Amino acid sequence: MAHLGHVEMLTDKFEESLDFFTRVYGLKLSGRDDTSAYLRAWDEYEFCSLKLTRSHRTGVGHVAYRVSSPQALERRVKAIEASGYTVHGWIDGDLGHGRAFRFEDPFGHVFELYWDTVKYRPGGADVPALKNTASAFTGAAPRRIDHLNLLSSDVTEFRRFMETCLGSRVTEIIQLDNGRLGGCWFTVNNKTYDLACTEEHGGGVGRLHHVTYATDQREDILRAADIFLQNGVHIETGPHKHAVQGTFFLYVWEPAGNRVELANAGARLILQPDWEPVVWTEADRRKGQAWGLKTIESFHTHGTPPVGE
Amino acid sequence: MAHLGHVEMLTDKFEESLDFFTRVYGLKLSGRDDTSAYLRAWDEYEFCSLKLTRSHRTGVGHVAYRVSSPQALERRVKAIEASGYTVHGWIDGDLGHGRAFRFEDPFGHVFELYWDTVKYRPGGADVPALKNTASAFTGAAPRRIDHLNLLSSDVTEFRRFMETCLGSRVTEIIQLDNGRLGGCWFTVNNKTYDLACTEEHGGGVGRLHHVTYATDQREDILRAADIFLQNGVHIETGPHKHAVQGTFFLYVWEPAGNRVELANAGARLILQPDWEPVVWTEADRRKGQAWGLKTIESFHTHGTPPVGE
Amino acid sequence: MAHLGHVEMLTDKFEESLDFFTRVYGLKLSGRDDTSAYLRAWDEYEFCSLKLTRSHRTGVGHVAYRVSSPQALERRVKAIEASGYTVHGWIDGDLGHGRAFRFEDPFGHVFELYWDTVKYRPGGADVPALKNTASAFTGAAPRRIDHLNLLSSDVTEFRRFMETCLGSRVTEIIQLDNGRLGGCWFTVNNKTYDLACTEEHGGGVGRLHHVTYATDQREDILRAADIFLQNGVHIETGPHKHAVQGTFFLYVWEPAGNRVELANAGARLILQPDWEPVVWTEADRRKGQAWGLKTIESFHTHGTPPVGE
Amino acid sequence: MAHLGHVEMLTDKFEESLDFFTRVYGLKLSGRDDTSAYLRAWDEYEFCSLKLTRSHRTGVGHVAYRVSSPQALERRVKAIEASGYTVHGWIDGDLGHGRAFRFEDPFGHVFELYWDTVKYRPGGADVPALKNTASAFTGAAPRRIDHLNLLSSDVTEFRRFMETCLGSRVTEIIQLDNGRLGGCWFTVNNKTYDLACTEEHGGGVGRLHHVTYATDQREDILRAADIFLQNGVHIETGPHKHAVQGTFFLYVWEPAGNRVELANAGARLILQPDWEPVVWTEADRRKGQAWGLKTIESFHTHGTPPVGE
Repeated sequence: MAHLGHVEMLTDKFEESLDFFTRVYGLKLSGRDDTSAYLRAWDEYEFCSLKLTRSHRTGVGHVAYRVSSPQALERRVKAIEASGYTVHGWIDGDLGHGRAFRFEDPFGHVFELYWDTVKYRPGGADVPALKNTASAFTGAAPRRIDHLNLLSSDVTEFRRFMETCLGSRVTEIIQLDNGRLGGCWFTVNNKTYDLACTEEHGGGVGRLHHVTYATDQREDILRAADIFLQNGVHIETGPHKHAVQGTFFLYVWEPAGNRVELANAGARLILQPDWEPVVWTEADRRKGQAWGLKTIESFHTHGTPPVGE
Repeated sequence: MAHLGHVEMLTDKFEESLDFFTRVYGLKLSGRDDTSAYLRAWDEYEFCSLKLTRSHRTGVGHVAYRVSSPQALERRVKAIEASGYTVHGWIDGDLGHGRAFRFEDPFGHVFELYWDTVKYRPGGADVPALKNTASAFTGAAPRRIDHLNLLSSDVTEFRRFMETCLGSRVTEIIQLDNGRLGGCWFTVNNKTYDLACTEEHGGGVGRLHHVTYATDQREDILRAADIFLQNGVHIETGPHKHAVQGTFFLYVWEPAGNRVELANAGARLILQPDWEPVVWTEADRRKGQAWGLKTIESFHTHGTPPVGE
Repeated sequence: MAHLGHVEMLTDKFEESLDFFTRVYGLKLSGRDDTSAYLRAWDEYEFCSLKLTRSHRTGVGHVAYRVSSPQALERRVKAIEASGYTVHGWIDGDLGHGRAFRFEDPFGHVFELYWDTVKYRPGGADVPALKNTASAFTGAAPRRIDHLNLLSSDVTEFRRFMETCLGSRVTEIIQLDNGRLGGCWFTVNNKTYDLACTEEHGGGVGRLHHVTYATDQREDILRAADIFLQNGVHIETGPHKHAVQGTFFLYVWEPAGNRVELANAGARLILQPDWEPVVWTEADRRKGQAWGLKTIESFHTHGTPPVGE
Repeated sequence: MAHLGHVEMLTDKFEESLDFFTRVYGLKLSGRDDTSAYLRAWDEYEFCSLKLTRSHRTGVGHVAYRVSSPQALERRVKAIEASGYTVHGWIDGDLGHGRAFRFEDPFGHVFELYWDTVKYRPGGADVPALKNTASAFTGAAPRRIDHLNLLSSDVTEFRRFMETCLGSRVTEIIQLDNGRLGGCWFTVNNKTYDLACTEEHGGGVGRLHHVTYATDQREDILRAADIFLQNGVHIETGPHKHAVQGTFFLYVWEPAGNRVELANAGARLILQPDWEPVVWTEADRRKGQAWGLKTIESFHTHGTPPVGE
């Protein structure tokens, strides 16, 4: 498995969401089809890391990982087919990539694995000044997609799904006093995490907690906070530093209500091959975020789609 | 192969070098034996990333990579033994790790592969406030070892060595007009590089160009520049941004003359499985560093040990 | 009036407070006498900007401004004597400055004006590398004292005191719905403020809300947050950005309970000669801090000394 | 004297210059008349800090300071009229300010003093989110005009002019071995400098060395460097830190060749009323900039207009 490839985000305010992501958040539009806009950050080699899709609801359409080779894709597909998890099978792909294998976790989130991708080819003013970057630097905060956070009613089961189907490593967990997992952070490479799952408290199914892009510096996030403020974006919490994973963060809600994060991990990577998952207890969590910020209530309850819709 | 583990740096001014690395540069002393001091950055899980060894000369003693499993070590050793490159064989290890396999590139640089390592166990005031970090945060710039740069008279041959013996990927190269490689950047994981090799211009053999630690933010490097200035450290060049690899850099000479860098890559990683090496031509290089700084002359000639010693 | 000179802070945990300010917060010790330690930041030209005094209680001993000339001192003294406010008269000074004129606001805070000062003369390792700075750069966050915040039961009356006795300009105010001033920010130079007064809600008299040092960059504050965390310092709130004055802030409590801030104003100055005070209403304030952080409850109630002691 | 108000910059590539300042450098257009565009940074209260004027040549049209009161203007005018320096007399003003008094230094630079100004009134999308800022935050680097640098063949004589006509304080000087001043830095407020004069080496008359805007953070300058690179702007030197004044800097040439700087002074201010000018000798200057960068040759020779035009 190579890396998280893209997330399909559903919006019931398509034009407002698209305006937010391109004009305020700082993604670039690669292309559009009937239902979706294909977006990417300035230094992403693929055509699309965020597929923004017009829908009657919000939340996540699907989550896609790019595998590390055609052979790896075959091996993964066999493992998934043998796993007993729900399989959707092969799809043809879209503007952003070729054929892909679809399957589903027990909580209703759809996943996709693919090898054939569409590489972004910059032209005109989007040709980068430095040939080792993917397109023109714009000054925008997001450099590349970093991770997403899903909600599930059984994080332990979700962990089994991720280990079985994606071969993900677990880097950190929240161990609740009642024996359940409160949260689990996964990675398929040296990033500290590319997907997190936290416990669903609102009775929702298949919900999204947030999608995150990485910035080069923490200062990019502080500057983005002022840009969000100026543009009337709802800033939910931050900037602050998570205790879990140590990430410097800022959470906002895009116009349709999906939570979007900007994050910076500094130089932190998980290079250690025998890394043992870090275990956070409820007692640890009561200390708040790294610098003491109490987690805002909506962070525990708000997901998309909202429960009841 | 998991990651670059440590570099043994030789110094003929041991006490001054040790003072520099601990008091000014910001590494921590894990332990000492008769010949060496074992140093690490604040967020490194191993006992040692820089083994500073008293010697009659400067330069690099050896370069060590940690493999990803005991099985991987066996496979690597077989490949190296079959390669025809000079093999030193197994050593017992030192304060920082267990048995290791030693071999040598055609230019006199000694390499070491190991699995058994000594994990650093913080105690007392060095226990970190956050359990997902390796030891107490001190405010010092270096977070973890990042890479080193070796010199060789034939970079193409060095590349063959790295691909054969370490299985490294090449991420960027300098292609000279005369058909030779001017430089080559390697990685065994998702970091953009963990070792670089540039052409030896001074007639030296087995020389070191520099060793580098990663900082969390570019600001850490700017602050370090003022600390180096205040402590009378020779600042050779920077802070500036490399065109190759896009790294924000600062180069200084430690008291014995070994070049040491602080660098920040921002959020840049090589996650793409089918990454094609970026090729820089001499025409590209004539533009200078990313923001136009002309590369200082000593950067092309100074290595350790100095030629003639 | 030239600038805020120093604040005398009282502590009933003198050794712990001194350890905090020198080892953790990053001030330098200029000297000590029987009751006090004289501290300064690395780029302050005077001997002392924080006089830390052993006491049976916490809070502020006195607040001192340096005037812009001996003649200005005479004029100010005349104005104060004519004002009807309580005058203590001339004192001889201390290790940090010469004779000074003492007086008092209606809420029990003692003020001091002085011209004759003791300039810090760096020697040995404290000689700065750059001759336009006051002493050796250490990497510590505080560069110079910035401001302090006092509490009073009648901010309007406090404003009259500041305008009459110090000739301060008002740059921003909080206008409560009940017609009272909730807070008032003052300056005697081009800084956006050097003293703030907010309404006392706890029934205390002559209390201190906080003392603040300025950092060069916002990043210095983020790094300091990790240093505070590592050293077990109580982080009350932040890092975040104030709506009022736009200052990036971090508040901690030193061991005796006095609130101490690190702040960064960026390039913001009040250069405009006909600046009109910015008026913040209760409706404005309900939006929270600049990026939406709700002001923590203790920020409204905690002052030193605690009420009842 | 309140502060540097605006600089009139001449350009023989008006459209390209205007595009650079608005699209790349980050100023906002307040208005235009037949010959000029009136530009300002996002947090400037006046209508104009850079008057960009179509001309047959480059360089500076005039330099304008706002006085601190109508009375101060009268006093200044009397002092100037008594000084013997060339007086142009009163002009009516332009889109950016009311009547102003014009005079000239012995080297052909025209100065203007004014009290009546046009305050910028933001409307629509330019209304700032925070009422203590002048207009909408855009993310652009420049927050306010900081200073300019003029060239003269006799810096000592220029110093006499500035002290006589503007009442400026001298904060730092370069003292050449031959007894002449190599450079002199002036301020009328607590900024460390608002105007610098360095020795003309190219035989030019009345030339401009550069105009500078202040950024909130050093990171804004690093990000701007990448934006300049991407937009093909000629980056002359930097980012680096000046030894003189300690300013973090980046110099570029706008399309017509005028040198423009972005700078950050951190928290440095000159609050000390009895500040003694810092004296830099040629020996000091041979150390290069603060972190050792050798000053690029063009920095000593390039001014606008170019000599011979």
